Amino acid sequence: MKEANISDSAVRRLSQYLRLLRELERRGTEVVSSRQLAERSGATSAQVRKDLSMFGSFGKRGRGYDVPELADTLDGILGLRRRWRVCLVGVGKIGTALLGYRDLGRRGFDIVAAFDAEKEKVGHEVFGVKVHSMAALERVVRETGAEIGIIATPPEAAQEVAAALASAGVSAILNFAPVELEVPEDLPVRTMDVVLELEGLTYLLSRNGAGEGSAGDGEI
Amino acid sequence: MKEANISDSAVRRLSQYLRLLRELERRGTEVVSSRQLAERSGATSAQVRKDLSMFGSFGKRGRGYDVPELADTLDGILGLRRRWRVCLVGVGKIGTALLGYRDLGRRGFDIVAAFDAEKEKVGHEVFGVKVHSMAALERVVRETGAEIGIIATPPEAAQEVAAALASAGVSAILNFAPVELEVPEDLPVRTMDVVLELEGLTYLLSRNGAGEGSAGDGEI
Repeated sequence: MKEANISDSAVRRLSQYLRLLRELERRGTEVVSSRQLAERSGATSAQVRKDLSMFGSFGKRGRGYDVPELADTLDGILGLRRRWRVCLVGVGKIGTALLGYRDLGRRGFDIVAAFDAEKEKVGHEVFGVKVHSMAALERVVRETGAEIGIIATPPEAAQEVAAALASAGVSAILNFAPVELEVPEDLPVRTMDVVLELEGLTYLLSRNGAGEGSAGDGEI
Repeated sequence: MKEANISDSAVRRLSQYLRLLRELERRGTEVVSSRQLAERSGATSAQVRKDLSMFGSFGKRGRGYDVPELADTLDGILGLRRRWRVCLVGVGKIGTALLGYRDLGRRGFDIVAAFDAEKEKVGHEVFGVKVHSMAALERVVRETGAEIGIIATPPEAAQEVAAALASAGVSAILNFAPVELEVPEDLPVRTMDVVLELEGLTYLLSRNGAGEGSAGDGEI
């Protein structure tokens, strides 16, 4: 299986295909065309075929892709043939929403511990996950073997939390604080920032060329 | 000002540069180098120069970019020299967090109306924003002139809401529901999905090549 250096956008499309495949599996659909995958993921059929051929999944001409087989291939590529242990720092509105979000567990992500700076929250369980003090962060991350840290703290606290997570040995960070984190080079970080996404939309609206480009992957 | 078809990733970097520039402005810093912009946005200096030269901002060799001037240029590119009216559908955990998120207003986005299917929420104000019934959606969107619709409903409701927002005349949608929406071709949609972001991380972790690629923009 050849595997070149693929872009964030391509990985995102693979996740989108996988989500559709799982939906099709639930409905008992066994075969899907590149056109069907394209329609529901904002890509073109040609893009779908190109994305999937990268990983040795070619489908059968005039028939399409075998749904369970392709889902399993994508599971493998995306590292989803196993479960992942996640810890959450910051049990505010977003953090609480994440603790209550059942799709995480369904998709293979177990939140094994939560942390908060507010004394009133420490020691309690939120949606079955125990909230620890910030002082316990490094110890509990090690003890639980959390591999991915989610930062849902106020922006002023995020950099310090990122450093603590890195030092405790997490392998990746998902950041909801609207700041760019400085972390060791080998620690991947994704930031989810609603303002950044809105600005992506206003960029398109201001060009008056909305529509084209919204799912684009062209190079600057 | 030439302006080619630039990628979502490039637009995202422009937003990141702008966030840093505003921070620098607050601190009274007048000049910034491409290296400083790069360090805080996960890009290389060369990438920063390339991104900015697309829009006619070249900086001064050995000196750097003028902070207020570059911030104003980026405001123009990203459509931020004006304020935007936003409506929110779904006042659950994520919706409430968004209503309470002050950065939206600071960055030029005013939530002018909210909608929810639960009778208990309708008629009340949440963080100063009135919650309307779903039945009032099309009317209120028109009356308030909301330009961007945020969908924070359960996934089963999202498609119907997207169709109603499109029909009411919003120009763009930011979607928090983990589904791919089918909307008219000229209506840009961005989806924020925590599972997709986590899968982007597990992809990197599974390759054991974490680090490189996390901020990558290469083509598949």
